[in-house]
Amino acid sequence: MTSRQALPAGALTAWASYLRGHAALSRALNARLVAEHGLTLNDYEVLLLLSRAPDGYLKRVDLAQRVLLTPSGITRLLGGLESAGYVEKGSCPTDARVTYAVVTEVGLAKLAEATETHLADLEELFVTRFDESELALLAELLGRLAGDSEGEHCPGGARARNT
Amino acid sequence: MTSRQALPAGALTAWASYLRGHAALSRALNARLVAEHGLTLNDYEVLLLLSRAPDGYLKRVDLAQRVLLTPSGITRLLGGLESAGYVEKGSCPTDARVTYAVVTEVGLAKLAEATETHLADLEELFVTRFDESELALLAELLGRLAGDSEGEHCPGGARARNT
Repeated sequence: MTSRQALPAGALTAWASYLRGHAALSRALNARLVAEHGLTLNDYEVLLLLSRAPDGYLKRVDLAQRVLLTPSGITRLLGGLESAGYVEKGSCPTDARVTYAVVTEVGLAKLAEATETHLADLEELFVTRFDESELALLAELLGRLAGDSEGEHCPGGARARNT
Repeated sequence: MTSRQALPAGALTAWASYLRGHAALSRALNARLVAEHGLTLNDYEVLLLLSRAPDGYLKRVDLAQRVLLTPSGITRLLGGLESAGYVEKGSCPTDARVTYAVVTEVGLAKLAEATETHLADLEELFVTRFDESELALLAELLGRLAGDSEGEHCPGGARARNT
């Protein structure tokens, strides 16, 4: 390993602000979602991702990757959402090896209910700290960091299955 | 609950960029730390927080809050670091109810080793996406979001204890 120079001081300050801001906001948003709706921020994000996916389903492995959970972590999270009736297990008729998470009507209703207060929280804790041009700037700058993939789909549509 | 207007479109775009960028970066940085040093990004951050704390220790509950883990999550994480010899349990002679995590010399050496490649990863994945003025701007804007607390300290210093 070759010896290397340290990063410029400004780079580490920007990175520290980035991480600390994300942690502080996530902590506050998580606490409010749990208190008001019994959902963690990860639960909320999983429901949101499923609600936005075509036909309301995603591969469980893709979901795990999107919310940065290990296989056992996503299993625990989905287990909680399944027992609340917000999500069901799905499988693909043309590829039985892959399992999907499918959002239910009850899950969509819960998401809509939680979104109401979550957006108010977001406004208070994030939006009001910036003016409109700063928000546009942040979107542009932070947008350079994302390398999102949408995940594969089951060609015929995943079906809910009993487990 | 009163019905409310949606947030301006720019606000949600900025927020989505923040979340997506954070997820993508964390995923990439985590994968590299695990492959090269056998540490997750959370392991790394816990070692870093401990190394920067006065006398190398923090309350376990404060650590959990800083890295957004549940009590059982931080117990698992610290259990892994303890069995690798990077961290020890500590207690405070004047308040036996509180338990601390204390970084060891081996833990500090591991952190230094991992930091070498982690900074190179950070440079590649974060720093090179921005010029210097953009980094300063990001630090200023995102700095408004953090509401960090340093956590309480044990007045006499926490001591490592056998468990």
